[in-house]
Amino acid sequence: MTPPIVRTVAELRAHVRRWRAEGETVGFVPTMGALHEGHLSLVRLAKSRATRAVASVFVNPTQFGPNEDFEAYPRGEAQDAELLASVGCNLLYAPTVGEMYPEGFSTTVTVAGVSEPLDGAARPGHFAGVATVVSKLLLQCGPDVAVFGEKDYQQLQVIRRLTRDLDIPVEIIGGPTARADDGLALSSRNAYLTPEERQVAPEIHRTLTAAIEQLHAGRPVAEVEAGAIARLSAAGFARVDYVEVRGAGDLARLGPGPITPPARILAAAFLGKTRLIDNMAV
Amino acid sequence: MTPPIVRTVAELRAHVRRWRAEGETVGFVPTMGALHEGHLSLVRLAKSRATRAVASVFVNPTQFGPNEDFEAYPRGEAQDAELLASVGCNLLYAPTVGEMYPEGFSTTVTVAGVSEPLDGAARPGHFAGVATVVSKLLLQCGPDVAVFGEKDYQQLQVIRRLTRDLDIPVEIIGGPTARADDGLALSSRNAYLTPEERQVAPEIHRTLTAAIEQLHAGRPVAEVEAGAIARLSAAGFARVDYVEVRGAGDLARLGPGPITPPARILAAAFLGKTRLIDNMAV
Repeated sequence: MTPPIVRTVAELRAHVRRWRAEGETVGFVPTMGALHEGHLSLVRLAKSRATRAVASVFVNPTQFGPNEDFEAYPRGEAQDAELLASVGCNLLYAPTVGEMYPEGFSTTVTVAGVSEPLDGAARPGHFAGVATVVSKLLLQCGPDVAVFGEKDYQQLQVIRRLTRDLDIPVEIIGGPTARADDGLALSSRNAYLTPEERQVAPEIHRTLTAAIEQLHAGRPVAEVEAGAIARLSAAGFARVDYVEVRGAGDLARLGPGPITPPARILAAAFLGKTRLIDNMAV
Repeated sequence: MTPPIVRTVAELRAHVRRWRAEGETVGFVPTMGALHEGHLSLVRLAKSRATRAVASVFVNPTQFGPNEDFEAYPRGEAQDAELLASVGCNLLYAPTVGEMYPEGFSTTVTVAGVSEPLDGAARPGHFAGVATVVSKLLLQCGPDVAVFGEKDYQQLQVIRRLTRDLDIPVEIIGGPTARADDGLALSSRNAYLTPEERQVAPEIHRTLTAAIEQLHAGRPVAEVEAGAIARLSAAGFARVDYVEVRGAGDLARLGPGPITPPARILAAAFLGKTRLIDNMAV
């Protein structure tokens, strides 16, 4: 049986309030829908940490740039609800744009530092959109724990930072990236890929894996990054936004010299019109 | 008996959690200390709307400009605690700067529109500091209602806007401005005034009262505003930042033509080095 679908903050809070009165705990998985095994693994993680799981599906317009894929972003609520049912999700919160941003809306949450490099530089305004909508979703739901994928690693760090800074009373949990057999990180945007592009796409994961081996072998960071970018370009990626090794927590640049763990290597590159991202622990 | 004083979010939340378990409700009055009858009226209002009242005292550095009076701002915790006891306040939350802004803090809440004119123009960054610290305080305490003075009218509207926009689950209540017998709005900053300046200070209230009569008599807004500014300058105010009539909710400029209620008239002016603000319903 598919979970009940609610579209307003009032209904969402009524469910959560009733659960709390019954002694239940709440795990929350915010998504943009077009669900795949990666999302389902996050819901399973939420259910392992709380007795009730809520998923939200909201394609947030404010985190898309003017030339990005907001209109084209895949949507399919009926299938999302079926998939959520398969992992025991207890409620689907699918608000309208008007419910999230009523007339007169004018508040923005921004996170300096961790949101500035990488996707923050490549997608101006993206993380302000993310930080604002995630603040809202967390405060609308009021969960005990909220689960976000490591696939969007910089987003996860931005969310950790803002919940700590604003004292939002929730525990943020990162879920490991789910991958296809050939290593490609699962993403709703993989649906955009042509069959030929889909063949090339796992080269991101292979490139990051090779880069990590080179780093462990002592090759300088700048050389490894440049080599990875060259490899992706040679494989057919149209534009490589970045391949960078950074501190795992604050995503700060690492000094010259040997890298000090924990570090993370992150990449973003276009295959045709599709922007793919991936990252791994170094 | 003075209320218990707590200095950490964890202690504050422990008190609130225990009250909630006992079925109590919580009213919250954030302040910057140097308490006077105006603050005490807000605590009384909180106690009329909830069974327990928490006041916070935190002189927030991020809402002061570089040339403003952060260092000089009056502080006196022992007397504040006595005054809070006199109105039945149940808890005083007085965090340190380090508790509010630990190392790595990097999140800002900004409110467009209502925070931009008036004090937003005169004090760049002020309302971002206010919006961020109030978001934190509300999320730290988790009250049912929070009370802010109409004395800081624009601040009250900024806070109404951000709690609505971010879905912070709290009811915001505005408390009427407390005034001295001669009409001067009570303010911690009145302590800066010399005896001579204190004699002149009520001229702000008299000027606003006269301006409202002129507006009701049909005089054009621009003419009334200009007349009020001239009157304050003539009375000895060193610099008049503004006297403006604006929409009461969004603080938008009013059209030419006759004013359409609800409107508010707001003023800010320096008497010597002391910046005084006041406002009244039109």
